[in-house]
Amino acid sequence: MGGLDDDIIVEEESEKRSRAASPCGHPEDLYGTQSSHRLLAYSDALISIIATVMILPVAHTKVTNEEVVSLAVFQELTQSVQLLLTTKIAVYLVTFLIVTVAWAAHIRLFQVIVRIDDCLALLNLACMMLITFLPYTFSLMATFPANVLGILLFCGCVMVIGVIQSVIVLYAFSRPFLLNHQIQISENPTLYRSHILKVIMRVPLICLMAGVCSFILFQLSYVLLAVVIFLPYISQSIAWCRSKAFGQTEESPDSMVFYSLLPSEPLSKERVEAFSDGVYAIVATLLILDICEDNVPDPAVVQEQFGGSLIEALKVYGPEYLAYFGSFATVGLLWFVHHSLFLHITKATRLMGLLNTLSLAFVGGLPLAYQLTHEFPRNSRNELEAIQISCVIIFFAGIFQLTIWVAALHSERETLHPRVRYSGCEHVFMLAKLSLYPCVTLGTFFLTCVLSRFSASIFHLMEITVPVAFLVLRLLVRFALALLRLLFRPNPPDPGRVVEEDATVPFNPLATE
Amino acid sequence: MGGLDDDIIVEEESEKRSRAASPCGHPEDLYGTQSSHRLLAYSDALISIIATVMILPVAHTKVTNEEVVSLAVFQELTQSVQLLLTTKIAVYLVTFLIVTVAWAAHIRLFQVIVRIDDCLALLNLACMMLITFLPYTFSLMATFPANVLGILLFCGCVMVIGVIQSVIVLYAFSRPFLLNHQIQISENPTLYRSHILKVIMRVPLICLMAGVCSFILFQLSYVLLAVVIFLPYISQSIAWCRSKAFGQTEESPDSMVFYSLLPSEPLSKERVEAFSDGVYAIVATLLILDICEDNVPDPAVVQEQFGGSLIEALKVYGPEYLAYFGSFATVGLLWFVHHSLFLHITKATRLMGLLNTLSLAFVGGLPLAYQLTHEFPRNSRNELEAIQISCVIIFFAGIFQLTIWVAALHSERETLHPRVRYSGCEHVFMLAKLSLYPCVTLGTFFLTCVLSRFSASIFHLMEITVPVAFLVLRLLVRFALALLRLLFRPNPPDPGRVVEEDATVPFNPLATE
Repeated sequence: MGGLDDDIIVEEESEKRSRAASPCGHPEDLYGTQSSHRLLAYSDALISIIATVMILPVAHTKVTNEEVVSLAVFQELTQSVQLLLTTKIAVYLVTFLIVTVAWAAHIRLFQVIVRIDDCLALLNLACMMLITFLPYTFSLMATFPANVLGILLFCGCVMVIGVIQSVIVLYAFSRPFLLNHQIQISENPTLYRSHILKVIMRVPLICLMAGVCSFILFQLSYVLLAVVIFLPYISQSIAWCRSKAFGQTEESPDSMVFYSLLPSEPLSKERVEAFSDGVYAIVATLLILDICEDNVPDPAVVQEQFGGSLIEALKVYGPEYLAYFGSFATVGLLWFVHHSLFLHITKATRLMGLLNTLSLAFVGGLPLAYQLTHEFPRNSRNELEAIQISCVIIFFAGIFQLTIWVAALHSERETLHPRVRYSGCEHVFMLAKLSLYPCVTLGTFFLTCVLSRFSASIFHLMEITVPVAFLVLRLLVRFALALLRLLFRPNPPDPGRVVEEDATVPFNPLATE
Repeated sequence: MGGLDDDIIVEEESEKRSRAASPCGHPEDLYGTQSSHRLLAYSDALISIIATVMILPVAHTKVTNEEVVSLAVFQELTQSVQLLLTTKIAVYLVTFLIVTVAWAAHIRLFQVIVRIDDCLALLNLACMMLITFLPYTFSLMATFPANVLGILLFCGCVMVIGVIQSVIVLYAFSRPFLLNHQIQISENPTLYRSHILKVIMRVPLICLMAGVCSFILFQLSYVLLAVVIFLPYISQSIAWCRSKAFGQTEESPDSMVFYSLLPSEPLSKERVEAFSDGVYAIVATLLILDICEDNVPDPAVVQEQFGGSLIEALKVYGPEYLAYFGSFATVGLLWFVHHSLFLHITKATRLMGLLNTLSLAFVGGLPLAYQLTHEFPRNSRNELEAIQISCVIIFFAGIFQLTIWVAALHSERETLHPRVRYSGCEHVFMLAKLSLYPCVTLGTFFLTCVLSRFSASIFHLMEITVPVAFLVLRLLVRFALALLRLLFRPNPPDPGRVVEEDATVPFNPLATE
């Protein structure tokens, strides 16, 4: 989406200039249009919070576990608790997917509408209010699968969101200066309007059908709701089948690529970053939220049970602080890898967006897995399981980040910066960065299988070494680069000079720009 | 901060160009410097979550209230609960202030360092981890005021943060291409370095003194910690006194204005917006977080108590949904006002930042006040009190937004866009927007005092009318503008044409750009 980003920057600049030049009387000023940048940032923040909210009931279940465990200290997790946990984790994952589908629709809408006014801002807020209510309706569906109320509420919300989005589109097309430049200069904007409305109204119509079906056969309505989530992929495969059967019958105009539902459709890179930042930030602080609320001891309890010694009372919470720092560091480092990756991505596609969503969904489970590792008695079977679950979650979060890169490499000319392409000088470094977490967690996982008695020590060792490894990694890759240069240069300089260059930075690179 | 923003945009663009031009081998590439934009966005998200986190214990207290109230339905809030609530609210407000002081320091640091590399990113993450731990240490201090442990932990955190920030400064000055352009081209960068280090180390040194004092006289250490928070204002008044006593003895260089601790010191407008967005987003979703976690009824309970009727079971939670939509709408509209205001602010100063912080601190209390309004039985004294508290909180949140504008008007040439200055065409409209909430809540407050029996109805009526009022306001101001134009134009056109212009938008303003 480099092109669009550039447009936005250029537009903001020209806006600044035009503002400075024409203080008043200009019709643009009169109607109060604004760059949509901040509205989108606020929407991204709201949606990222809502996407991660259903992890909280999962966390809550674990507190109940703790009670169960404290009652029967060395018993294993009962099967019923495990079933409940599995249900809640499934609810979390599906909610995450549903909310990100709504978010992707929001991105596409505001790739068409590039400027806003007060009315659009208020309509968007109403839309957001309903999106934030979706996780709750879905959680009702999961708790009462045979009751139609959950389905009806969910379908009702989605339909109202669809209606509001249609109103937004109609409003924006009635004020063409709010639209994308491409549509503004096109000869037939009504063609665009009907195409976009058709795409938007598809989802509410399926939901209407699902709502009607729920009275007849509620199982069918769940199938229809699943269709909503996978609609892009279904419609794409239908189009593929059709093109195979009848030849290339339907070809949308080139400029409509951003409303085509293809996996190579560009997503706004800026918004993918903003959404990811929001999720990482919420997830990194999930444990401190609990700690601030629950782990301040009661003065009376300290006086009675610990003889007034606050240090003794706080020692009880020791493992929880450790869990907090561990999860914050891991989430922070995963953010760091994500940040490094997206720095070199020039265009994000739908497929990369989906992989990013899956990576983020695993990141969301991380602090709770960490919390679990410090909750069980040392060397119990539960502790081993919790540590292995943590490793698996980190592994998947890391491996999906790696697949984003792999997906980008498939069409590297369009999506990647030259430096990290196959022939690029930072290709190896990026690969090392992205594969560090998957490799380390895989190693830890198998080590804990073999040396199950030392699982906790191995895990803590991993926690401490990974941040250091990220620093050493840089030096290692630098060293490897220096070696490669030595091997391939006709007149190799002595290795001492290379090290010296590293240490002193003899010239100012910005001065050469 | 318009100037700096422009610099950043220009820099990003030149960066893109330089990347596209020189894929490899450039020393800048080798050392992997990056634009700091996304690191700052992530830091802002983390800090805004942490600033609002201490509202959760306040929320938790209210759940206990509910139990108390349900035991003795028509009793008033007991005094001890009120005292506890007051303490927790004080903790929330002071935490908010402390975290925003840390955030302001972070802004100033990254106004000096405009580019980052991997090492700086990791150091910044370590710094963030300690900042997110500050609220907990402060909450320990508040619960055990006579115990030195809380003070020591707090001082320890602040000192380590100070050391990390000093390391960041030293590292950045050893790689000058990471620095602000102004410092890069200056003749004597070491002068800047020592000045910045002196400003940064002030806070850890006071904390060290406070830590030592806590063993001798712990009351004194609280005084020292209060000095830390108000340090900018204290140092400024000392400088003022000194200049009065000895004349203008000490004058920092012009270009050092961003490290001067003056109230007119510019803050990065972009970051003030990002931080505010984060706080508004968290606060808007606070209630839905609780609803998703707690308000999904247990299937067994539904079967037993409500005869299997899910609708009956959900009706119990009705008031909570109402509270959610009410608080979301109010926070959303306050965000909308904030957004409109900052759209017309060209430079944010320290004073405006402080007023913004105060406004946000009140916004943080809003959802809980709303929750409270729906928690008590109809027409009880508690309900009336809760409604009045909500009005007071919205009033203050709105009035502080208004004072940001008033502060900006004081130096309108530097801080405001011409359109909203005293002579600007949107001055009246902005005033109307900013004063809508304070006026309405003031009116509601006095109405509920007089007609205390209908307080709930009045409050709900306000909730519904305010969003409509924001739309009508626009029409009203347009109408007023049209009237004014009619009065001051030599040849007034007939009013019908003005209305028609509104409806049809005959020309495309972007085409004139």
